[in-house]
Amino acid sequence: MNVTIGIDIGGTNTKYGVVDREGNVLFHDSISTTGYDEFETYIKSLSSEIKKNLGGNQVVGVGVGAANGNYYKGTIEHATNLKWKGILPIGEMLKKEFNAPAVITNDANAAAVGEMVFGAAKGMKDFIVITLGTGLGSGIVSNGQLVNGKHGIAGELGHTTVNYAGRYCNCGKRGCLETYVSATGIKRTVYKLLADHLENSELRQISFENLNTKMITECAQRGDVVALAAFEYTGRILGTKLAETVAHTDPEAIFLFGGLSLAGDLIFKPTIKHMEVNLMPVFRGKVKILPSGLQNQAAPILGASSLVWSTLK
Amino acid sequence: MNVTIGIDIGGTNTKYGVVDREGNVLFHDSISTTGYDEFETYIKSLSSEIKKNLGGNQVVGVGVGAANGNYYKGTIEHATNLKWKGILPIGEMLKKEFNAPAVITNDANAAAVGEMVFGAAKGMKDFIVITLGTGLGSGIVSNGQLVNGKHGIAGELGHTTVNYAGRYCNCGKRGCLETYVSATGIKRTVYKLLADHLENSELRQISFENLNTKMITECAQRGDVVALAAFEYTGRILGTKLAETVAHTDPEAIFLFGGLSLAGDLIFKPTIKHMEVNLMPVFRGKVKILPSGLQNQAAPILGASSLVWSTLK
Repeated sequence: MNVTIGIDIGGTNTKYGVVDREGNVLFHDSISTTGYDEFETYIKSLSSEIKKNLGGNQVVGVGVGAANGNYYKGTIEHATNLKWKGILPIGEMLKKEFNAPAVITNDANAAAVGEMVFGAAKGMKDFIVITLGTGLGSGIVSNGQLVNGKHGIAGELGHTTVNYAGRYCNCGKRGCLETYVSATGIKRTVYKLLADHLENSELRQISFENLNTKMITECAQRGDVVALAAFEYTGRILGTKLAETVAHTDPEAIFLFGGLSLAGDLIFKPTIKHMEVNLMPVFRGKVKILPSGLQNQAAPILGASSLVWSTLK
Repeated sequence: MNVTIGIDIGGTNTKYGVVDREGNVLFHDSISTTGYDEFETYIKSLSSEIKKNLGGNQVVGVGVGAANGNYYKGTIEHATNLKWKGILPIGEMLKKEFNAPAVITNDANAAAVGEMVFGAAKGMKDFIVITLGTGLGSGIVSNGQLVNGKHGIAGELGHTTVNYAGRYCNCGKRGCLETYVSATGIKRTVYKLLADHLENSELRQISFENLNTKMITECAQRGDVVALAAFEYTGRILGTKLAETVAHTDPEAIFLFGGLSLAGDLIFKPTIKHMEVNLMPVFRGKVKILPSGLQNQAAPILGASSLVWSTLK
């Protein structure tokens, strides 16, 4: 049977899987991303693990989602979350290993293509996927095609500005959307609220390093006022900003994917409310905010593999 | 010879022309948009004028650029600048008149397609056109295709927000980009500056009704401090906001078209400066801000006619 390989390279782990034309993950596993000093050794080891588990299937392509993945060049360039510096020619290397074409893109673009091919955006031609992880990534689809942009780096909504005098961002600017809306962003918001207000909160007992989205979600579900206020604050900023994104590409739906989106109504309700209020009237009531249809362990693998299926169509 | 008809419907005048495959305008003229009580009479009269001037050429399509033009439906819907209310089935009507397909879109989208087919965006696949008239319109091209969006109303950058407590906008919101950056926007800025500051200025002698972009430009060229400050203020807001637009679609270039863009360095310099400062570092130095290649009388006709040529490819 013809299969594709989907690879999702994160700063800590690299997930990979073997995926058939219908989106069934025949096999998946992961290796440590940090355990290899040389990029070549990492690719050799990853490829060898995958080949062991092909079960006689024929690889027709390899898809990779990675931060700073460059679609046009097939490279990962100056990634801040990897130990290997400079320009990594991963596409060329995987092409040799599997004797099949390799497609590279950033992880949020992979998620958008995955949503279109296997997820909740099936049949849609104009939509956006927002990935809420450590940062905020985005993939934009218009006319049924991924918007890559001239330099292959379109969809950086995480670095549009909420407040020009706001929080410091890894990118060097201030007040970027992802400093407010992401796993890290909501932690910063919890700490801001704890600093500004006097309310009791379970969250006063947890250090910044130990705090995570799951804890904040569970606190909010127990009625903790600070945790609830943090979600309201986060959704207000996300919704307000998404109203501007709608004015750009007029999507049918915006999908939220990743940790923060698993909080359900806690994040969706304020996001929808503040998007609607801030939309230009002609767009009101027209754009859905929905959970990703790929909210599971294998989603990043499906996204990366769908990159290949979508080019083979 | 095969020709297309380009029609640009403005609130005051309707410009039309006969255009060949190379973008030569074989004939152009205009009629009053306001002189007809019935939309049917207006279309009859417009069609009759055009037919008189075809000179034996074969019409292969009609392109229309109009505010609130709906690409998918071939209609003009609830236009605030026309006396005919509701939904106007202009596509169907022109198709009957000329026995040829008719394509309708909003005027800024027509300008973007015109720029791609006949203007300075020839050969570009990812760019944006900003039209600076009474308001601010925009047309986005990605992957060589116009971004129309799910509802056919993409590219409303004029209604992204500069200041949530800012100037009142016709759309019902506050602080929209076009309330600062447009022919009307710079007039409002001049009046704000005259109110806030004590400097002498020629502009103190002119009423709001009588003031226009050309006067402000000429005053600035003579060194008038208020006029100069108004351009700096306008360019700062435009450049800052365009940095966010770049993060969405990663264009090769952004073209400025229309009255305000004719002020040259007065508007381009602050726009470029403030866009660069506010860009996410990975985009810096990569995106050009350029004047439209269609800055002449016949540009709107070329834009509308190119809509047809681009669909015939």
